Amino acid sequence: MKNFLIVARSFSDIHEKYVNVIRDYIKAHGGMCILDLDTCSDSSDEPISVADDVQCIITVGGDGTVVRVAQNITNRNVPIVGLNCGHLGYLCDMTVDNIEHCLDQLLNDNYKLDTRMMLEGDCSNDSGNHFRALNDIVVAPVAAGLYVLNLTVKVNGIQLYNHNCDGLIVATPTGSTAYNLSANGPIVSPHADCLILTPINPHTLNSRSIILASSDEVEVTIEARHDEDDPQANIVYDGTLRQTLKKGEKLRIYQSDTTSHMVMLENVNFLERIRARMQEI
Amino acid sequence: MKNFLIVARSFSDIHEKYVNVIRDYIKAHGGMCILDLDTCSDSSDEPISVADDVQCIITVGGDGTVVRVAQNITNRNVPIVGLNCGHLGYLCDMTVDNIEHCLDQLLNDNYKLDTRMMLEGDCSNDSGNHFRALNDIVVAPVAAGLYVLNLTVKVNGIQLYNHNCDGLIVATPTGSTAYNLSANGPIVSPHADCLILTPINPHTLNSRSIILASSDEVEVTIEARHDEDDPQANIVYDGTLRQTLKKGEKLRIYQSDTTSHMVMLENVNFLERIRARMQEI
Amino acid sequence: MKNFLIVARSFSDIHEKYVNVIRDYIKAHGGMCILDLDTCSDSSDEPISVADDVQCIITVGGDGTVVRVAQNITNRNVPIVGLNCGHLGYLCDMTVDNIEHCLDQLLNDNYKLDTRMMLEGDCSNDSGNHFRALNDIVVAPVAAGLYVLNLTVKVNGIQLYNHNCDGLIVATPTGSTAYNLSANGPIVSPHADCLILTPINPHTLNSRSIILASSDEVEVTIEARHDEDDPQANIVYDGTLRQTLKKGEKLRIYQSDTTSHMVMLENVNFLERIRARMQEI
Amino acid sequence: MKNFLIVARSFSDIHEKYVNVIRDYIKAHGGMCILDLDTCSDSSDEPISVADDVQCIITVGGDGTVVRVAQNITNRNVPIVGLNCGHLGYLCDMTVDNIEHCLDQLLNDNYKLDTRMMLEGDCSNDSGNHFRALNDIVVAPVAAGLYVLNLTVKVNGIQLYNHNCDGLIVATPTGSTAYNLSANGPIVSPHADCLILTPINPHTLNSRSIILASSDEVEVTIEARHDEDDPQANIVYDGTLRQTLKKGEKLRIYQSDTTSHMVMLENVNFLERIRARMQEI
Repeated sequence: MKNFLIVARSFSDIHEKYVNVIRDYIKAHGGMCILDLDTCSDSSDEPISVADDVQCIITVGGDGTVVRVAQNITNRNVPIVGLNCGHLGYLCDMTVDNIEHCLDQLLNDNYKLDTRMMLEGDCSNDSGNHFRALNDIVVAPVAAGLYVLNLTVKVNGIQLYNHNCDGLIVATPTGSTAYNLSANGPIVSPHADCLILTPINPHTLNSRSIILASSDEVEVTIEARHDEDDPQANIVYDGTLRQTLKKGEKLRIYQSDTTSHMVMLENVNFLERIRARMQEI
Repeated sequence: MKNFLIVARSFSDIHEKYVNVIRDYIKAHGGMCILDLDTCSDSSDEPISVADDVQCIITVGGDGTVVRVAQNITNRNVPIVGLNCGHLGYLCDMTVDNIEHCLDQLLNDNYKLDTRMMLEGDCSNDSGNHFRALNDIVVAPVAAGLYVLNLTVKVNGIQLYNHNCDGLIVATPTGSTAYNLSANGPIVSPHADCLILTPINPHTLNSRSIILASSDEVEVTIEARHDEDDPQANIVYDGTLRQTLKKGEKLRIYQSDTTSHMVMLENVNFLERIRARMQEI
Repeated sequence: MKNFLIVARSFSDIHEKYVNVIRDYIKAHGGMCILDLDTCSDSSDEPISVADDVQCIITVGGDGTVVRVAQNITNRNVPIVGLNCGHLGYLCDMTVDNIEHCLDQLLNDNYKLDTRMMLEGDCSNDSGNHFRALNDIVVAPVAAGLYVLNLTVKVNGIQLYNHNCDGLIVATPTGSTAYNLSANGPIVSPHADCLILTPINPHTLNSRSIILASSDEVEVTIEARHDEDDPQANIVYDGTLRQTLKKGEKLRIYQSDTTSHMVMLENVNFLERIRARMQEI
Repeated sequence: MKNFLIVARSFSDIHEKYVNVIRDYIKAHGGMCILDLDTCSDSSDEPISVADDVQCIITVGGDGTVVRVAQNITNRNVPIVGLNCGHLGYLCDMTVDNIEHCLDQLLNDNYKLDTRMMLEGDCSNDSGNHFRALNDIVVAPVAAGLYVLNLTVKVNGIQLYNHNCDGLIVATPTGSTAYNLSANGPIVSPHADCLILTPINPHTLNSRSIILASSDEVEVTIEARHDEDDPQANIVYDGTLRQTLKKGEKLRIYQSDTTSHMVMLENVNFLERIRARMQEI
């Protein structure tokens, strides 16, 4: 590959430094670069349109930056490789110590691609928009700790449960190590073909994470609670607030036709990252 | 006891009906009543001042109404007995089926008192106010699922942990079956003398509820996260928002000098309620 | 289908009664039956050889009987349908109330088949035998609560963790509601294509169930603990003890080439059974 | 204090080396020592009778050695201090790096005592013996992963639950970080006054650790399972098998009149040990 788009989280000198390192190295070795430094903050929901000749996107930041790019690309399924400038992550194969080695592999077409499923969500009150997520789609109360949601969850049209809870996570295997892990959900290998349904703080003793087939469709209905006139839920895609739902409104979540393509450069695989995480302070 | 204050959640005909039933029965049997129908909605934070001659407060609603009254009484430690008009609860000994029997016991001084510890919280940014809770004091993000908190938790001045999380619950034994149960904390008998410290959705594998001595003091500091300029936490007392904290500000939580006195009328004890709850649909 | 093998747990009058009901009905409607009443107790490990003309096996007992049959058939992949004589289960479509209706469907070829993956295990000390499981393969100490195991777990040759623990469960989706559920593992739809790796009482804070791709291979090594001279583990296939391992010996667990075929008669699907279970006392 | 009993796990050179170091130092500084090198292996259940003039017991080994000594002392409540030769523990204040400093403190009476509650168990089939535990009393199946127990658990005579499970742990706060931690129970400060009731692998979704008052009495009955003729449970005190129970037999567990006295030498308290453990690999 010779033509790269470099996308960075914009707010830090450290990111800018590594953007320059990458750009200079690519140019010095016969490649070309486009830079995009402003569209990818944590809460950004700007669509990213990738020019026709771009063969690969290099993100500078961390797992969050990779997720943001995967979520917001609108036009093309370009392979993504992440440079991790911070904490241990799961999605970034480049670190500040192996940049040149990794760029050599990219420039010499010495890599594999890992395809990751994505989720898509439709709201019943939607005016036409539906959104995508690489990690998870989360139904959350507008104010945590104050208002409890009452959610009815159906899978393929069949009611699974109705809970008073703080919300619900529908995660991909990629997202199993994100919010799902915090909510006590299982860790899932990216090559297991499934969805993870994890309730957030359900007020019941008999709840548990449920692993569904990736082809299953989840429907969440915001029910009224006996003592609230105006229940509302935020619908959060990969950490970005996209929609709100009122009482009686529904959200459908299902596997997207779009997939993400992660460049695999190093021989560090998912299990080694899990092991490292289990040993982390 | 002859002199009662009846406090009800105000928004429903059913509550008003039972208030009248209770009042009429007490008057017909030589007692006296004061009514207070407006101060006790779920989110109320009005202080409740109890007149000198009131010997007992009867609440009409559910566990939430008992909690609200216990939390907001300012001047006197009056015994409280709850009428439960709704779902199975832990704090209400009266049900719609045993009202007259229970009132007879009260009027004939045939009851026991159960003393429950309460919590108190002080914010470092506080202008003099500190608040009380019967169930729990919760540190929660201003928007769940969107912003993660970074909290440092100390006990008696010694750091216990620093977590990225959705928040923290410090609960009394009474509150162990409230939000603490949703966040996967243990169930605690009201007669165990302890505090429960339960993190809410910590982004780590190695967290667990920790039971402290009731005399231990918990301090929570709102830390800055690397990618957020304005972290803020809600401090929620028994489900009522009382304070907000900014980066660097602290909350101290400790056992209150004030206790609550619950009237014990029936022989149904805590363990039978736990068993019923474990068998609940 | 016209030719059936009926297999029952042998120790009870109730099972014999229903065996007779089924046999009589099948014969009266033009079918044929072979009975096998002795090979299928809970701890049976007798191979079941199915005659050439048998088209379907009907089990009389419960989920355990279905599992035992699926595990022990040696020669042919015959569809299995279970009659549930006891508690709510996941694998039996026939109940004592719908026997005739179900038999009509079988006799009229009005059914679907559900294919379930199975596991296979090889011990490094093995003299040629390897065993199969429909639910799970469990590594357990020879005496629980007394001797802790130290296990090293690798996936596809890469070390995942080393734990002091009571053991390890490798479960299929079918087995997710069996021992895996007790050990706090997630519930998994039978149509999710994966393995579940759940440690049993690991003496660590940072463990969690891990969902693997069904093609992943798990290797468990029995390590020496510092203070034990003779560590030993039982290897338990679907609840039946098959092998024991000594210090340094290994067990490989992987997806079997053999699958089980469950007859689907009713429209009650897995999710409705999960919902019923969540509401069970 | 001048008169010490040194108790060591007997099977290792390293333990003998430190026994000699301690003895020589004490003698050189005017104290006296008795050695006991054979009674304290992990599975030992020999009663330890402490001579009248012994003022303090020094254990050489780890937490397990402290527990074994506390459990088996029959005659006197002598303070115990542990030397930790191995992994991070909770009960040992001496490490191989601070031996002389700690011995100076002991010899100069510069220490505090920490009183720890103990448990006692009575079996209904008992011929007069009852046993004590510092950490926990565990009801476990005679063979894990093979036979499930059906247990009825009562507290103060009131039924709490009936579970199919692998067993039950009743732990002291001291024991909360032992087997209880493995079975997903909460961590409990030694100064919280309570018991912890944690089921082991219950085959139900709606179970949870329950914290009881230290004065509560737990009764466990071994019930028959429908498909087993001879259910049996091991009763394990601090990891030592003491009794077995048959169907219909009961075990009563309650706070012992005896307490253990741990010498506090260092300013490292329980919370710092918990923090270290949470950060451990």
